[in-house]
Amino acid sequence: MLLSIWLLLLVARAHAQQHPVTFFTKAEAARIASAVQRYPLLQQSYDQIKKEVDGWIGKDIPVPVPKDEAGGYTHTAHRFNYNLMFNSGVLYNITNDARYAALVKQLLLKYAKLNSTLPKHPKATGSSPGRLFWQALNDANWLVYTAMAYDLTRSAFTAAERKTIEDGAFRPQVEYFTRDLQKWFDKIHNHGVWACAGVGMVGIATDNKEYVDMALYGTAKDGKYGFLAQMEKLYSPDGYYTEGPYYARYAIYPYYIFANALHRAKPELKIFERRNRILQKALLATLQQTNLDGKFFPVNDAIKDKDFTTNELVTAIDIAWDVYGADAGLLAVAKKQNRVLLNSGGAMIAKAIASGQKFPDHYPYASVEYRDGVNGDEGGISFLRNGKGKDLTTLIFKYSSHGLSHGHFDKLNINLFDKGREILTDYGSARFVNVEQKYGGRYLPENDAYASQTIAHNTVVVDETSQFNGHEKLSGRHHSEKLFSSISDSVQVVSAVENNAYKGVQMKRTVYLVQLNRGKKIMVDVFSVRSADEHQYDLPFQYSGQLIATSFKYEAATANMRPMGTKNGYQYLWKEAEARTLDSLVRFTFLNGNTYYTILSVVEDSAQLFFTRTGANDPNFNLRRDPSFIIRKKGKDRLFVNVLDIHGAYDPVSESSSGSASEIKTIKTLRQDDRYTVIAMETGDQLVYICQSNQDTGKHTQHSFRQGSDVFTWTGPFLIRTRPLTTINQQTK
Amino acid sequence: MLLSIWLLLLVARAHAQQHPVTFFTKAEAARIASAVQRYPLLQQSYDQIKKEVDGWIGKDIPVPVPKDEAGGYTHTAHRFNYNLMFNSGVLYNITNDARYAALVKQLLLKYAKLNSTLPKHPKATGSSPGRLFWQALNDANWLVYTAMAYDLTRSAFTAAERKTIEDGAFRPQVEYFTRDLQKWFDKIHNHGVWACAGVGMVGIATDNKEYVDMALYGTAKDGKYGFLAQMEKLYSPDGYYTEGPYYARYAIYPYYIFANALHRAKPELKIFERRNRILQKALLATLQQTNLDGKFFPVNDAIKDKDFTTNELVTAIDIAWDVYGADAGLLAVAKKQNRVLLNSGGAMIAKAIASGQKFPDHYPYASVEYRDGVNGDEGGISFLRNGKGKDLTTLIFKYSSHGLSHGHFDKLNINLFDKGREILTDYGSARFVNVEQKYGGRYLPENDAYASQTIAHNTVVVDETSQFNGHEKLSGRHHSEKLFSSISDSVQVVSAVENNAYKGVQMKRTVYLVQLNRGKKIMVDVFSVRSADEHQYDLPFQYSGQLIATSFKYEAATANMRPMGTKNGYQYLWKEAEARTLDSLVRFTFLNGNTYYTILSVVEDSAQLFFTRTGANDPNFNLRRDPSFIIRKKGKDRLFVNVLDIHGAYDPVSESSSGSASEIKTIKTLRQDDRYTVIAMETGDQLVYICQSNQDTGKHTQHSFRQGSDVFTWTGPFLIRTRPLTTINQQTK
Repeated sequence: MLLSIWLLLLVARAHAQQHPVTFFTKAEAARIASAVQRYPLLQQSYDQIKKEVDGWIGKDIPVPVPKDEAGGYTHTAHRFNYNLMFNSGVLYNITNDARYAALVKQLLLKYAKLNSTLPKHPKATGSSPGRLFWQALNDANWLVYTAMAYDLTRSAFTAAERKTIEDGAFRPQVEYFTRDLQKWFDKIHNHGVWACAGVGMVGIATDNKEYVDMALYGTAKDGKYGFLAQMEKLYSPDGYYTEGPYYARYAIYPYYIFANALHRAKPELKIFERRNRILQKALLATLQQTNLDGKFFPVNDAIKDKDFTTNELVTAIDIAWDVYGADAGLLAVAKKQNRVLLNSGGAMIAKAIASGQKFPDHYPYASVEYRDGVNGDEGGISFLRNGKGKDLTTLIFKYSSHGLSHGHFDKLNINLFDKGREILTDYGSARFVNVEQKYGGRYLPENDAYASQTIAHNTVVVDETSQFNGHEKLSGRHHSEKLFSSISDSVQVVSAVENNAYKGVQMKRTVYLVQLNRGKKIMVDVFSVRSADEHQYDLPFQYSGQLIATSFKYEAATANMRPMGTKNGYQYLWKEAEARTLDSLVRFTFLNGNTYYTILSVVEDSAQLFFTRTGANDPNFNLRRDPSFIIRKKGKDRLFVNVLDIHGAYDPVSESSSGSASEIKTIKTLRQDDRYTVIAMETGDQLVYICQSNQDTGKHTQHSFRQGSDVFTWTGPFLIRTRPLTTINQQTK
Repeated sequence: MLLSIWLLLLVARAHAQQHPVTFFTKAEAARIASAVQRYPLLQQSYDQIKKEVDGWIGKDIPVPVPKDEAGGYTHTAHRFNYNLMFNSGVLYNITNDARYAALVKQLLLKYAKLNSTLPKHPKATGSSPGRLFWQALNDANWLVYTAMAYDLTRSAFTAAERKTIEDGAFRPQVEYFTRDLQKWFDKIHNHGVWACAGVGMVGIATDNKEYVDMALYGTAKDGKYGFLAQMEKLYSPDGYYTEGPYYARYAIYPYYIFANALHRAKPELKIFERRNRILQKALLATLQQTNLDGKFFPVNDAIKDKDFTTNELVTAIDIAWDVYGADAGLLAVAKKQNRVLLNSGGAMIAKAIASGQKFPDHYPYASVEYRDGVNGDEGGISFLRNGKGKDLTTLIFKYSSHGLSHGHFDKLNINLFDKGREILTDYGSARFVNVEQKYGGRYLPENDAYASQTIAHNTVVVDETSQFNGHEKLSGRHHSEKLFSSISDSVQVVSAVENNAYKGVQMKRTVYLVQLNRGKKIMVDVFSVRSADEHQYDLPFQYSGQLIATSFKYEAATANMRPMGTKNGYQYLWKEAEARTLDSLVRFTFLNGNTYYTILSVVEDSAQLFFTRTGANDPNFNLRRDPSFIIRKKGKDRLFVNVLDIHGAYDPVSESSSGSASEIKTIKTLRQDDRYTVIAMETGDQLVYICQSNQDTGKHTQHSFRQGSDVFTWTGPFLIRTRPLTTINQQTK
């Protein structure tokens, strides 16, 4: 499907560009028109757009002078207008009804008057102010959609009207981007992708080669910046988007929609083939980074409600189907999106669903690992998965680079999702997107002050200070390193080190997702910190659920509650309870949904334990009230051995509860030295040994040593050996 | 369908009782057997039960000596066993496979050995200890199911086996109930219903008239207690169950399952026709007291996760379909239950669904009012509803009697549900049912100490003391009185008074659910308190959502947080913020789901405002962390005029937000005296007047008075008049 008919046609007449070409061609529109009534999902998508647009036909649609911040009237109006123009343009080509073109013309002529007069937006903050909107990013959104709308309808305008629109509505915005905001335009960042897509789309729509070249190669046209450089530098070779899945979702729209235009207008670029089909990898990686319910995993800044039914993913999937071919996994997603674009891919997907083609209930989630960095050599992120259908467990382990301005200080962070629910959580971002009363809908101050700090995550905090002292630039220079991993079968493991986040502190974390007898799943988390100096090490578990039981006594704040600290995020945590414990196996059981979870923590020597909840020093009620369980150890070299046991069942409808206590009886660190870590654990009916090599993590290295009366012999960096508790010597690796 | 074939058969041979008869007859079982393969839902229900039971065929099933509290091993084992025996008995009759009878026999013989030896349960507390379980109620559950299992399989046992079982397994339990626990057995309470059903079911299963008579008429057989008295005294004439919907759900099982047995075994009782078909009314009232998602509204003690897919409602609906006939509303529920009983009603429902019969997406919810009390003269509860499908808004107003031992001190309480979500909330009960670590799965101490206290609700608290000083017996002697109501059309209203909850304080609350222009909905809440003495009046709004904005400045607890008080539930509230305000219209906007809600409160003179959150003095983490907004006024006579405005839309997937600020501009109390209350409100485009008559609330009384330049003339207890803000004089009533 990569070489479609129109593509051949376009190659033949490269110098006399036909319009429309950005979204689809006239021929494609005609095919959609004839397909609409045949496929229910296409019909429904068409009806919905038509209903929305038809309500505005013949009306005087406001183009207000920009005034309000995000979520305010003028912001919403301009956002509404660009969607309306684009949809009306699409409908014009499908229906040939001139009223749709007239609607677009009316608005474009108003923008032609407005845009040349615009100063910096009155509510603008920061280094990239917008004109129509408070930030230039939103102006870029406007440009992408509006350029397509123009391309879709320009055949209905007179030459004079075209000139008015091109000079008045588009040129001021393009010049503003490429001159006033040239540094912002020439930047490797999701804003830059939008900016290039906007300028490039105008270039194609207005037959302006200069614009297209700047969009593709940067204002200097040397290829250092621009869309093609963005394709090289924002994705790792595996398609991982360095800012994380929430922004991968956001960026994928301009990547796909502009590539879709280039695919037709400049087929010689072979845009969808570039970099070993990086755009396909990007889409698939973005989908793998969603939870069972389609929500993007909260890595770095992320709105946690966002899922793959968002317009960006509808667009990417429908275009991908067209250019990369059919994919049953995409169909599972498209079914949940419950709408398609009115283009070839959308029609094909609607046809596939109408044909009764089989596809899975959920996207085919798998254990995956993505390298970070342009060359794939800047750490990465692993998603360990176990379980079918709704019983899926996903353990996320992050050892990537910082993730640009949306990154968090959370190297070696873990998160756990189980049965579609968030168990070990990430705060996400502190933001109410587009809710005007909440800081103009922008990132709240608590996003930097709390959500991106290390203590808001599930990784060790040294001396109540965030990694890299909370300096983004410093963090941006480093990344963690993966030591080894194994992501298949019933024992999955990833091990990584981080030696730069805290001066003089070496951190190594190895996490296992293990399936034991009778389908029982546990996570084993071995986190060692080593330093020549004395430190305080806090390992928080942000959990979601209700405290059911603890094995330890604690002192709760009953009549007076104080924050955990004064800075680096600690000031936002109320200290609900604290405990001290000596040489013990600490257990903390909580209930989430229909399942019990117990964190078992080996305390050798002593530790302090805290139950905290966000909300201190939050006079504007900007933060949710989320709990965490923090294990604090002091010393030079300390080892945190934690097991998260997934157990039991609770059903409030039948009022039944079973297995509410963990069956794990003991966990012991048998050995911890430069060469090996050996942990032994007794579950209900199994003895489990975990051995790690601490020096040589080679795949083929053979290890053998005696531990008490046992001899451990194995190949590779780790060994998990289980035995029934009654007999001996049954091995699995 | 009321006179089914087998009923006629049974009448004919009343003295030679056939078995089975409690759950279904042999003939009915044969019909089910032939229907299973025809109706998918029946097949699926059958397969599920068969799969569960088949796993235990031929196995040695443990009948452990009772030891554990709720949720523990022996508790769960006995609960499991009675379900298993019942299901195996049902399968025996459908399949005629002797192995199912053998399974039941194996267990019954074990119980025959165990039960005669049982002392009081070691974990028993309270006045009605169980033997197999910690409380006798669970023993009654056991008796109901096990007696049916015996009835279903006794034909496969020898006479000697029958004697062993009847004497060993049943008689000790029946005697324990009717002698040792005679007072508990002879009690008008949901426990009593279960106890009577249990003993009566044994009576029918074992042909023991004595048992049946005690079950029907109490141990004295005078009809003062027993099942028939329970039918008279626990439901109001409207079918309202005085303990509230959560317990209505619980009680409906023994009512229906025992009535189902009596229907066959003693057709002359015409049990389903009694008291104008009170059991039908009870079922329909219980269903009307559920939210869009099928969850029972949390009135009095209630586990908030519980919904109508529970076994009790499957049973009641399937039996009701059989005896009261087809009902499309029940079909909507049955579809969500996604299983049916293996009896005639279940088969008919499965058939109706398989036939493609149309039924609504949701149970056909309507505005309804239920009187409380045996004679319907003890106050009641109103459910005002507006909106179709998912846009349903439900306002609950409670002015009932106390609700026995599960009642809360919440007279004149309101709750609001919107679009399926809880907006103005009720804590429900403080309990983790059957979670052993949480106080043995019983009601937590915080249930009495917090959840049932007045401050945990949405009604006025006088002087930080709960209604009736928190004395259940005292509260049980009183009920509120409804003044008037109107529950149709776009203006719905209920008004009620409570003059006993606080000595010397008269409380009157009138709540309106009003639909204004363009479908906009508001709740208007006019709460007057009058006293000869000075008091402190707290009106809490337990809300669910995230604070978005307030019109007032407050001082937040940032670095030190303290409880609101020391007793009557106040000790559990952290004071997150407080404010003082003078003569103003207070606004507090919060976001829940995709909708904004603003509470607007008229403050004349002065008021204090508090934001609180549960969790203080909660060292065992037994409470959720739920927020509330409390309006505090001091004085003798005070009026609380509050409007809850439902507005705007927020979509985190498309990141759009609109209408996040309330369009209500002003609210003024124009008049408040013995005769009239007049409130005026300006919304975006309407002027709304609300007039209430405070003396004569007659339906036909005419009122007329001048207020400023306006003349208000109307008939009945209230008037809502709206005008467009630009023109005048458009009236609606």
